[in-house]
Amino acid sequence: MEKDILMREWDEIKGIIDDELRKIQNEIIFPVELRDAAFYLINAGGKRIRPFILMMSAAMFNIPYNISLPAAISIELLHNFTLIHDDIMDKDEFRRGVPTTHIMYGEPIAILAGDFLFSHLYTYLIKSYLKLGIDRNVIVNIALALSEAMDNICYGQVMDLMSNKYIKTINDYMKMVYYKTAALIEAATYIGGLLGTASLQYLNNLRIFGKNIGIAFQIADDILGLYGDTKVTGKPVGNDIKMGKHTILVIMALENMSNVEKQKFSQVFGNINASVDEVKQVIEIFDKYNIREKVTNIMENLVDRAIFALSKLPDNKYKKILEKLSYFIIYREK
Amino acid sequence: MEKDILMREWDEIKGIIDDELRKIQNEIIFPVELRDAAFYLINAGGKRIRPFILMMSAAMFNIPYNISLPAAISIELLHNFTLIHDDIMDKDEFRRGVPTTHIMYGEPIAILAGDFLFSHLYTYLIKSYLKLGIDRNVIVNIALALSEAMDNICYGQVMDLMSNKYIKTINDYMKMVYYKTAALIEAATYIGGLLGTASLQYLNNLRIFGKNIGIAFQIADDILGLYGDTKVTGKPVGNDIKMGKHTILVIMALENMSNVEKQKFSQVFGNINASVDEVKQVIEIFDKYNIREKVTNIMENLVDRAIFALSKLPDNKYKKILEKLSYFIIYREK
Repeated sequence: MEKDILMREWDEIKGIIDDELRKIQNEIIFPVELRDAAFYLINAGGKRIRPFILMMSAAMFNIPYNISLPAAISIELLHNFTLIHDDIMDKDEFRRGVPTTHIMYGEPIAILAGDFLFSHLYTYLIKSYLKLGIDRNVIVNIALALSEAMDNICYGQVMDLMSNKYIKTINDYMKMVYYKTAALIEAATYIGGLLGTASLQYLNNLRIFGKNIGIAFQIADDILGLYGDTKVTGKPVGNDIKMGKHTILVIMALENMSNVEKQKFSQVFGNINASVDEVKQVIEIFDKYNIREKVTNIMENLVDRAIFALSKLPDNKYKKILEKLSYFIIYREK
Repeated sequence: MEKDILMREWDEIKGIIDDELRKIQNEIIFPVELRDAAFYLINAGGKRIRPFILMMSAAMFNIPYNISLPAAISIELLHNFTLIHDDIMDKDEFRRGVPTTHIMYGEPIAILAGDFLFSHLYTYLIKSYLKLGIDRNVIVNIALALSEAMDNICYGQVMDLMSNKYIKTINDYMKMVYYKTAALIEAATYIGGLLGTASLQYLNNLRIFGKNIGIAFQIADDILGLYGDTKVTGKPVGNDIKMGKHTILVIMALENMSNVEKQKFSQVFGNINASVDEVKQVIEIFDKYNIREKVTNIMENLVDRAIFALSKLPDNKYKKILEKLSYFIIYREK
């Protein structure tokens, strides 16, 4: 029952977003290969959580959906651009259950598809807002929020690519996740406030809210990657361990392990051929140090901070939806 | 003597541009790998012709260099971003006499370095112009001109990557070169006019000027690639033929050749191991149809059109410099 307000609104927004994305795609008539490659991943699915957060944040300040839509779309285009390039860098072959863009279209076209989403989101955003007569100062500040978020994503991506150098402590991890994931969600809430000409104090609380649910969102992913129900997530048990991902669980466990345990761990970590038994042994080590509980605690603390910032924002239906969304993010099953 | 006004000003601008680029680089403190990779190609050299054109166009409308500088820098960052990604797509290993960015830093960091230049140019541009108190409407329109130019570069790059499909006639070639090369030079002259709050008629003539010298610039490159003095260009005779480049010379020659000649041509075109003699035979076929003269004619016509548009713009020192630059572009030796 309680979940219904959130899901009803989210489904509605998803429909609006997907219609507009299709419209943008159809307006690009040449060259077809670029259009198809750029929208291939977008059409393969996605929760549209970033544009949803942006539109709810704007709605808190009485901004109707048709006004927040262009900025919301821009955030989704930016997100998909980063995914296309990430998949090339990481040599990932599947995402959203389908082959990745560079597998489908080749690397050169996939690189261009990403570049094009990035440039075209600015073209689309600015043209849409000039047409809607939005205050030029607001347009400028939205454009800046997007580029600063993207600067941060680049910083985070380099940290992630060079995790042996850059990610040694929980603090390093938090910094990386802020850059790579949370900065864009922070931009979504902040841009919602910009559209609503929110006060500096409101803008600040919007940022704190977005930043904290953004980091919590990634930590929830990390937990699901190790403890998620394989039937729900669709990924094998301990997948993240075998893939050698530097999740918060791994970093915290390493801070606690004895040298003997570290040695055992290193034989399984990043070893795609590790057996179910070996993975189980690693999870036993994690359990011995209560890693799951400790990380869940960190995540819940982040959401508490987010909810506290949210409590200072205008009280209405959209605020309630964002509150429900915060809990959904950390208690989801996939 | 005549050339001196142009070169003196260009050298001065180059100094200003390079100082500012260094400043931007030094302000990025983390992560060093991203900073170094992003600025590696920029530091390897370059004529800085695009920012020079932008600053001269703005100066025609009495805009001082410190005001046009941020937009000029943005154009140069955008250009270098496209070069980094182009080199990855084309698997080129050398540019400006040094190994390309992906050879130096690996492909993942090189992709990110390009992405970062693109996002950071917006961050830099908008922050600089907010600080300088530039009219918000002008900032918005500059941001739009840049993203539209980049959209076009993507279109042109796809045409070039799929030249067998997309580049069959001189018209196709002109379209591709407009997208891939001239659109950014057109943006440079147009943005100069935006900064100078030029009238619509002036803006239109600025665009015509930029577009036509942009296409002429590429055609001059094509001619040098086949007929340039190898001691000056540093490239072997007939390099473009052996590399299989779809230059305007090749397209025009193919439109004229007999089937026997086409067959001979196809044995040399794209054959990196072709002998000096084989290349000579191809050039003889080109000469038989006066390809060099015909293409030079097209190029000079484009410059005539550019100069005619320029003649309608405000008469001052900077207009003279742009006129000299137009002739320099087509009569340069490398």
